[in-house]
Amino acid sequence: MPVGTAATVKGLTPEQLREAGAQMVLANTYHLALRPGADVVADLGGLHRLMQWDGPILTDSGGFQIFSLARLTRLDDNQVVFRSHIDGSLFELSPERAIEIQEQLGADCIMCLDECPSHAVGRDQLEVAVDRTTLWARRCKEAQKRSDQALFGIVQGGTDRELRERSAAGLLALDFPGYAIGGLGVGEEPDAMYATLDFAVPLLPADRPRYLMGVGKPIDLVEAVLRGIDLFDCVMPTRNGRNATAFTSRGLVRIRNAVHERDPRPLDEECACPVCRRFSRGYLRHLFAADEMLGPILLSWHNVAFYQHLMADLRSACRENRVARLRSTLLARWESSV
Amino acid sequence: MPVGTAATVKGLTPEQLREAGAQMVLANTYHLALRPGADVVADLGGLHRLMQWDGPILTDSGGFQIFSLARLTRLDDNQVVFRSHIDGSLFELSPERAIEIQEQLGADCIMCLDECPSHAVGRDQLEVAVDRTTLWARRCKEAQKRSDQALFGIVQGGTDRELRERSAAGLLALDFPGYAIGGLGVGEEPDAMYATLDFAVPLLPADRPRYLMGVGKPIDLVEAVLRGIDLFDCVMPTRNGRNATAFTSRGLVRIRNAVHERDPRPLDEECACPVCRRFSRGYLRHLFAADEMLGPILLSWHNVAFYQHLMADLRSACRENRVARLRSTLLARWESSV
Repeated sequence: MPVGTAATVKGLTPEQLREAGAQMVLANTYHLALRPGADVVADLGGLHRLMQWDGPILTDSGGFQIFSLARLTRLDDNQVVFRSHIDGSLFELSPERAIEIQEQLGADCIMCLDECPSHAVGRDQLEVAVDRTTLWARRCKEAQKRSDQALFGIVQGGTDRELRERSAAGLLALDFPGYAIGGLGVGEEPDAMYATLDFAVPLLPADRPRYLMGVGKPIDLVEAVLRGIDLFDCVMPTRNGRNATAFTSRGLVRIRNAVHERDPRPLDEECACPVCRRFSRGYLRHLFAADEMLGPILLSWHNVAFYQHLMADLRSACRENRVARLRSTLLARWESSV
Repeated sequence: MPVGTAATVKGLTPEQLREAGAQMVLANTYHLALRPGADVVADLGGLHRLMQWDGPILTDSGGFQIFSLARLTRLDDNQVVFRSHIDGSLFELSPERAIEIQEQLGADCIMCLDECPSHAVGRDQLEVAVDRTTLWARRCKEAQKRSDQALFGIVQGGTDRELRERSAAGLLALDFPGYAIGGLGVGEEPDAMYATLDFAVPLLPADRPRYLMGVGKPIDLVEAVLRGIDLFDCVMPTRNGRNATAFTSRGLVRIRNAVHERDPRPLDEECACPVCRRFSRGYLRHLFAADEMLGPILLSWHNVAFYQHLMADLRSACRENRVARLRSTLLARWESSV
């Protein structure tokens, strides 16, 4: 899922997203609740109508941003109180309120409110977060009024096997239609993430979507699919695109580099996206040098297409039981140029 | 012509431009000569290939920007020497060099180098500029090597009738395939501009394109078409779009205003552009409030479509001899809401 934080995947129109192969997008409850407000989104017909995206949409619960962007003022089992990173105004979020907001936003998949601690906290604090997340998941499920939204539970527990098992067991008892793995990709080493997935994914039912939140680099997607993950969201394609870095079948291309000045080739000669079919590296470099909006737009567009193409390749490989082989091929290519 | 200063109409892809009804675009020789350099554009296949615009392109001569943006260091009949507004580096531009650069850029219509003085200068200085512009026009014509580009002459002379006559006579003797009126829309009152057009347009042959450079507001386009002008370029649709101001059939809409917060209506209920067909005022306001790129993109898109639609209406009215009636209708509408 490309990330449309404020109900827009930065710089791209819905049809450009479609052309890039995107099927489903994510929007951030935290950002939308602060601005323009969930009631405004509801008044304007809900997220689908607002952003004119007719495919599925998933909203997160706001938990991750509260614990990373906002200034926390109080956190207990009942609720979390925080100040907006935009204007410092005070907000309260409880499991019930998180569901109410997400019902107003109207996405197809919604998430339970979770506590997502920093990866640096000790085991005791991690354990408190796991138990609170389970408690909140139950309250979220009970608070749900709409029947047309799939509510996913979020497994926490950092890289600790026992805590992941405890978290998964608590959530499975609530029988959600999908499960997410939270608390990874938050600063731990890639190997620690992969090792955690090795034991955490099999804890979740294979017949329900298994979603790795906020991850990640192309290689992370491959490693996680190899371990059973179905669904991802990440800002990397658009954020890196805005910062003049393109993902290609031969590795990263930093398009501001002078070497591209007179290069008539596309970003990626193996890519059939709307950007690579037409525009030269020389033009894209010029757009960034001249600080033109079209540079970030075109690189974001290509990067989203790259990610979607990668996921399509992984889906084919899954069906044909050759994900490990695809992984070797991709690794050899990507490493050869970065 | 929407303005694509640096070989990109800010924020829009070529297909979005097409969808907005644009037929021809302008690019600025001054900006492109400075960055990425005309030789780089030529190496990348020329402007059409570079920006992937397969319709006609016009490049200006660079004169206007030299006299407005750059720091002049020397100006005589031979050439103009100036410092780049980007990095202060020194450039020389002669009529011969202006043509050489525009032949490298490869547009379909190119412009003679002209001297475009401020509208505040006295008659003596204006007269020098007129004579120098005629001298330079002759040298431009002689310098032309490519036969596939239409070279236009530029009439100067401010709002002075005698000087406009003198300028037109000098250029007509050189028999250009098209003529532009420069030195208007540079700070003089609208009525002074219209009065100048009253006598300046009939000086130019009606069977060749008559182009009013750098103009203007919607009402200016109507008034100028009424006086025989065929072609315009202006940054207003895109610049105002980026600044959250939309042109509509009922006047200007400032989309940041709080009144639009929950408004489900499009920017312009009479507009069938790709923005008005889908997005609400409430969404557009949110995009600007959240500082999202999509806001400037969508408003620029709508505004270009508004201008193109206006020109299409004016073309129909010309064919049916009812431009004056259309003018009254439009004026009544636009003034009712601004």
